[in-house]
Amino acid sequence: MHLGLAELLREAERRGFQAVGLWRDNLEGMLLQKVARLLEVSGLRLSSLCRAGLFTHPEPEGRRAALSESKIAVDQAATLGAAALVVVPGGLVGRDLAGSRQMVRDSLGELAAYAREQGVKLAVEPMHPLLVQERSVITSLREANDLVEELGDDCLGVTYDAYHVWWDSALALETARCAGRIWSVQVADWLPPTGRLTACRGVPGEGCIDLAGVLALAQEGGAYAGDIEVEVLSEAWWGAGPEATLDAVVAGLSALKP
Amino acid sequence: MHLGLAELLREAERRGFQAVGLWRDNLEGMLLQKVARLLEVSGLRLSSLCRAGLFTHPEPEGRRAALSESKIAVDQAATLGAAALVVVPGGLVGRDLAGSRQMVRDSLGELAAYAREQGVKLAVEPMHPLLVQERSVITSLREANDLVEELGDDCLGVTYDAYHVWWDSALALETARCAGRIWSVQVADWLPPTGRLTACRGVPGEGCIDLAGVLALAQEGGAYAGDIEVEVLSEAWWGAGPEATLDAVVAGLSALKP
Repeated sequence: MHLGLAELLREAERRGFQAVGLWRDNLEGMLLQKVARLLEVSGLRLSSLCRAGLFTHPEPEGRRAALSESKIAVDQAATLGAAALVVVPGGLVGRDLAGSRQMVRDSLGELAAYAREQGVKLAVEPMHPLLVQERSVITSLREANDLVEELGDDCLGVTYDAYHVWWDSALALETARCAGRIWSVQVADWLPPTGRLTACRGVPGEGCIDLAGVLALAQEGGAYAGDIEVEVLSEAWWGAGPEATLDAVVAGLSALKP
Repeated sequence: MHLGLAELLREAERRGFQAVGLWRDNLEGMLLQKVARLLEVSGLRLSSLCRAGLFTHPEPEGRRAALSESKIAVDQAATLGAAALVVVPGGLVGRDLAGSRQMVRDSLGELAAYAREQGVKLAVEPMHPLLVQERSVITSLREANDLVEELGDDCLGVTYDAYHVWWDSALALETARCAGRIWSVQVADWLPPTGRLTACRGVPGEGCIDLAGVLALAQEGGAYAGDIEVEVLSEAWWGAGPEATLDAVVAGLSALKP
């Protein structure tokens, strides 16, 4: 059971909250002016609107569509007076981390120009490395800070979501670095992951890691010249048995070679 | 079905592998000299033995026991001529990341002195931030490099496991930094996690994040003075309904205040 927007605002107010963050899903089927009016009557601030972004797509049309949709989100954030519009960067395309990050950089730069005109703050959200394939190739506060600094637009800042950044040994350093550029702070606590996550790995080639690239890094210039181990902790492959697994590993390794 | 050690070595050799990595589980119930002999006969190198470590425990006895067990692992690695002994640092104790990291540093320093005497290389394994609670408070190659440099023992190096480090935007930089100090390279591919991992968050206080500390970082010195959002994507709390969730959130937030 979910609350409707009017009920949600009433509940939040009744319990002493002073602001709410909304997802754009919450606005669906409602006139934006009506939402603005509900917020105004409630006296609650709109701490953030979520989300713009998801910029990464294999085809240019997908990237253009994401940018258009993000501009609509900017319009909505402006109309509602959101303190910030959260930008979820977008997940990995194929196995190309560098290329995916470039897509985020390009689209974010364009969106920033649009948001600045409307006075909307864009809060780039680094997400837990767990979500790099599905949601965000920007995996640490450092990366988000780098991106914001590089693009150098006054409307750009970061989302500081405890759930996504808490594990990072560079957290204090990077938080100091983005002081005054934190547009949104969110919290949730970390629970032991459901499912046996240590045991859902794939044999080389089965998943989304550019293993040839990652291995080349370790081997180029003689950084490492020893053996390469394949360590596929996997309930699926354990179930498949050692013969099938070895076959798959041998095939996967062969495919890695240049 | 798993292979016994002798069969495993035969299969590996038959398929053209030149080395194997073993877990200490593989040695259970066998005389170490017999394992050494099997390896010798097979002609396969022992690329690594896994593992020492798991140094983090709330009580000193737990930490002492882990260190003792790790010394046995060093002895085994020496006897078997393992190219390296993998060190899995150990997971989070309570909510204290800094304290847990200190435990790793202390025990690793002591283990290094022992391993150096025996000519065993210790390969510190940074693990995916997904596993910070269960397995490793060392979550990036940068952290592992920092640790190795700080302790400054010749026997110390890193494990470069593609599965654990691939997402990191600092990977090229940090790999260059540990050139010649990579004692072990491992690969597995990344598959979409099983379970709905984006929806297993906890309300403040329910899990293991030091949320008060993480929030203080963002708020001290005026880095951020805006609203704090609670964003608990959770199938469990969705099932519990909005009333119960709001009660839990209000209680959790109150407990966060100093």
